[in-house]
Amino acid sequence: MSISQDTSIASTAAQGDAFCVAVDWGTSSFRAWLLARDGKVLAESRGPEGMTHCVTSGFEPVLRAHLVKLAAPASLPILICGMAGARQGWVEAPYVDAPTRLTDFATRAVRVPNGFADIRILPGIAQRDPLAPEVMRGEETQLLGLGAGVARQLVCMPGTHSKWVVLEDGWLRRFATLMTGELFGLLSKHSTLAFAIEADVKFGTDAPAFLNALDKGAADPCLALSRLFGVRAAQLLGFETRSDGAAHLSGLLIGAEVLAARQNFPDHADVTLVASGSVADLYRAALQRVGLNVKHVDADHAVRQGLYLAAHSLWA
Amino acid sequence: MSISQDTSIASTAAQGDAFCVAVDWGTSSFRAWLLARDGKVLAESRGPEGMTHCVTSGFEPVLRAHLVKLAAPASLPILICGMAGARQGWVEAPYVDAPTRLTDFATRAVRVPNGFADIRILPGIAQRDPLAPEVMRGEETQLLGLGAGVARQLVCMPGTHSKWVVLEDGWLRRFATLMTGELFGLLSKHSTLAFAIEADVKFGTDAPAFLNALDKGAADPCLALSRLFGVRAAQLLGFETRSDGAAHLSGLLIGAEVLAARQNFPDHADVTLVASGSVADLYRAALQRVGLNVKHVDADHAVRQGLYLAAHSLWA
Repeated sequence: MSISQDTSIASTAAQGDAFCVAVDWGTSSFRAWLLARDGKVLAESRGPEGMTHCVTSGFEPVLRAHLVKLAAPASLPILICGMAGARQGWVEAPYVDAPTRLTDFATRAVRVPNGFADIRILPGIAQRDPLAPEVMRGEETQLLGLGAGVARQLVCMPGTHSKWVVLEDGWLRRFATLMTGELFGLLSKHSTLAFAIEADVKFGTDAPAFLNALDKGAADPCLALSRLFGVRAAQLLGFETRSDGAAHLSGLLIGAEVLAARQNFPDHADVTLVASGSVADLYRAALQRVGLNVKHVDADHAVRQGLYLAAHSLWA
Repeated sequence: MSISQDTSIASTAAQGDAFCVAVDWGTSSFRAWLLARDGKVLAESRGPEGMTHCVTSGFEPVLRAHLVKLAAPASLPILICGMAGARQGWVEAPYVDAPTRLTDFATRAVRVPNGFADIRILPGIAQRDPLAPEVMRGEETQLLGLGAGVARQLVCMPGTHSKWVVLEDGWLRRFATLMTGELFGLLSKHSTLAFAIEADVKFGTDAPAFLNALDKGAADPCLALSRLFGVRAAQLLGFETRSDGAAHLSGLLIGAEVLAARQNFPDHADVTLVASGSVADLYRAALQRVGLNVKHVDADHAVRQGLYLAAHSLWA
């Protein structure tokens, strides 16, 4: 069963088992699940109506349309995480300050005034350190979904804005953001490197341009900034072709990210990688390259599980 | 006498002293000088007709229009450096390979077929190292213009693509490109940081947001990538305001550049800074912050002097 954008699926199970609707409302995407009391997914609905879309079109109509797709029973409670709770979102859910116990932040969910259901938005988390100010919205719910298995762990959550997080006995201790995904998009589409990069080219973790660049970025992240122009220069001088560009840039940026993070969080030999699809493959390769033991958790599963646990603490 | 874009000035001196026309033809700008036999500037003409403009409109009409503005005598030889010699430029002037003696590369200038003058375009320089491929066009002429004063020197040439160069006894030994200026433009205009940055805000080298960020970038360039998001987070959490954004981002990127370069070229206590205007002030502050002794040379002067020396070697 494959799931694509803007589609919905409903399981054959009776919707009467439904316990809550769980929503991951990001900047540029919307995902909702109808969950059973035991956490099982009864139905799913996805669309491109992220916060950016809803700022102009409104949030409630988007949610209502997806509830119809989910065939969600009326009056079911709805729990939302992500950018819907930003200041420019639907209703602001003020940040909880780090360090914080992950199982506590659900109690800080903010109610959304409306006439049809108990709708709450989970808060994000802020690190109010003037030397390393940080915020997250959505990732905290994935972290909750990881469960309390390991006493102390480093978590890598790649994306437009990658988050690296230290968890300890169920507490989120500290975190850092790396704009790796956004830098890749900016450089590959809008910079002079765009001439050297084929948009949307697919490459594997065995692509030489990726591996060579990974070594450069990871051997010396300090110099990653000095290597970016090499994506173009390598082609001008005949060492690589345009089909190598995306892999080269990706390797430099991911390599620099994982080693910068390794230096930022030095006392970890293991890392939990929360990611999906080809991004997970690229990061696994990079993390192993810098000597980390990788445990992979699917990002979709993590956020759904986090929403379920938070909903359970509120309404079970 | 102030000089602005798309204007020309002619000195009161008789144009009969004219020796050559010197042209710095960049990606997005055009600058031409009418030079006397002793190197003195008899007239200047500037415009926005860089290579990007000329690829569609043609190169010769732009040059001819500026020759009129300069009141240049007919048949005067014309020497050009910069992107006009790129593959996608007017006539390709193939790269000279580094290491190269700076006084030699003028002999590799390429003639431009035309019906009215001896027009030549200076070549750029390539570093054909598969581990650190690099190219430059235009900066080599500024370097020639520095003269052969110092036995061994590190040169910092800030810009859209900053160049760091090691010169030794008149030879260009090796160089590196850092896309600092382009990254600043991309991040401040097209990224999520754009919300946190006022376009075109002016700030001095004493701005606390600049100095604090400079320290972060320069204290640990490896982590500069992890600090970028802090430009926005610092404002979301009330530590800074939007008017601090440009200084903060600038400090991070320049700080990371100067320390990355310091690690790339460790055995230098002195640096020659080739820059003009406010960029020169920001880099001087950053270079001094990482303990380098700075000698400043105006970039305009350097390229004009380089064109003059090259023209002299061809036609004197």
